[in-house]
Amino acid sequence: MKSISIIGIEGLPIIYPGDDLPKLIMDACEKENIIIENGDILVVTQKIISKSESCLVDLNTITPSNLAKKWAIEWDRDPRLIELVFQKSKRISKMQNGVLLTETEHGFYCINAGIDLSNVSGDNMATYLPIDSDKSAFNIRNSIKKSLGIDTAIIVTDTWGRPWRFGVTNVAIGLSGMSPFRDYRGLSDANGMDLKASVIAVVDELAAASELVMNKLDNIPVCLVKGYKFVPDEGSINDLIRPPEQDLFR
Amino acid sequence: MKSISIIGIEGLPIIYPGDDLPKLIMDACEKENIIIENGDILVVTQKIISKSESCLVDLNTITPSNLAKKWAIEWDRDPRLIELVFQKSKRISKMQNGVLLTETEHGFYCINAGIDLSNVSGDNMATYLPIDSDKSAFNIRNSIKKSLGIDTAIIVTDTWGRPWRFGVTNVAIGLSGMSPFRDYRGLSDANGMDLKASVIAVVDELAAASELVMNKLDNIPVCLVKGYKFVPDEGSINDLIRPPEQDLFR
Repeated sequence: MKSISIIGIEGLPIIYPGDDLPKLIMDACEKENIIIENGDILVVTQKIISKSESCLVDLNTITPSNLAKKWAIEWDRDPRLIELVFQKSKRISKMQNGVLLTETEHGFYCINAGIDLSNVSGDNMATYLPIDSDKSAFNIRNSIKKSLGIDTAIIVTDTWGRPWRFGVTNVAIGLSGMSPFRDYRGLSDANGMDLKASVIAVVDELAAASELVMNKLDNIPVCLVKGYKFVPDEGSINDLIRPPEQDLFR
Repeated sequence: MKSISIIGIEGLPIIYPGDDLPKLIMDACEKENIIIENGDILVVTQKIISKSESCLVDLNTITPSNLAKKWAIEWDRDPRLIELVFQKSKRISKMQNGVLLTETEHGFYCINAGIDLSNVSGDNMATYLPIDSDKSAFNIRNSIKKSLGIDTAIIVTDTWGRPWRFGVTNVAIGLSGMSPFRDYRGLSDANGMDLKASVIAVVDELAAASELVMNKLDNIPVCLVKGYKFVPDEGSINDLIRPPEQDLFR
């Protein structure tokens, strides 16, 4: 039987800057009798990585520009948050209907440059995306390897909106230890037809799957996926970013 | 422990027009000792639904228009396939770099109107998307309810590309028996901050998760999800389609 299981890891404490996140994850697994094994995938939300890596800004320290103030007044937003979005963006892709769709320094397209106020302690604290989520993923993987002698793949996720469709979904923003893809090109289906267009972005599918056991209310920011045979590879989220010349939507 | 499992259903035969798909799925589950229970979610790829519902076209019956011929020559495509894409589209959203991004009659945005040549018997046979995938999902759900007395949710999926990111992922194109969303609006996080933007498109996450056990080579077009507590609802894929006035990307 081909099956995978996705296990939410409960019991993690609130994360603060400087916390040893890999250790806290391993401790929580031990407490919950969840065994991490070779070939498992650990999926971790951006929020707790940003907090442990001090990717935090006190909005009281932000002085909004005139553009940020104007936009904030027009759309009933916090001008300091708008200014922070500007600062964390390489480019504003769309700025209409009160929505800021941004290209981040990483090359990601997301609303508000991935800046978030929820699940952060303190009234005026915002998190921004980790500077290098592949490295964040590698660090967690490396700590687990050193502590337990187990090689896992790690995926870092965030929750983003999409064009055309309502609702947000979890997507991958960093990885370590696996290829982001399953590549069917050059292979044939049961009828001998080439599977031409079939490069599957499995890290995004794993990120999406992980959200189903995570829970924004009950503090489940990490899950463990068992039974999915990924393609081992150093892996980088940069491979998922479509170059502008191949993208109809820049 | 909060966990879900996703089980690929192997052993389905090749599907032909008029086949009783729900019966074949239930037979395959029985043969594999997979028990369908109340509250399970059955995820079914579009391809076998299209085949069972005779959403098939022999390309030899298609007469390409001059526009289809011109585009096909320019980008080394089959002019009959291009013509079929035109016929199954409400609107061509983008037509550049050899890519046809279309809005289908359903309101979906996808490459080539969801028309596919892979995993179809016969050199010149193409499948198109089911006319009403919610109804397809309802019919499967209803058959299972009548046969087994079990109420499941059903999701119909297809594999689509996305702007900005490489690789395709599975998305939902039809559903029955569940809300497509998990709605956190009006609720607060652990710090009392409103979870404003958090309407999660869980049917797309479940669709994405299902692909991880499906396999385009080994003929696993159906899977069963256990342990995910969806919000029971009649459900419609139309709720996922973002109205043009709220969408930056039409």
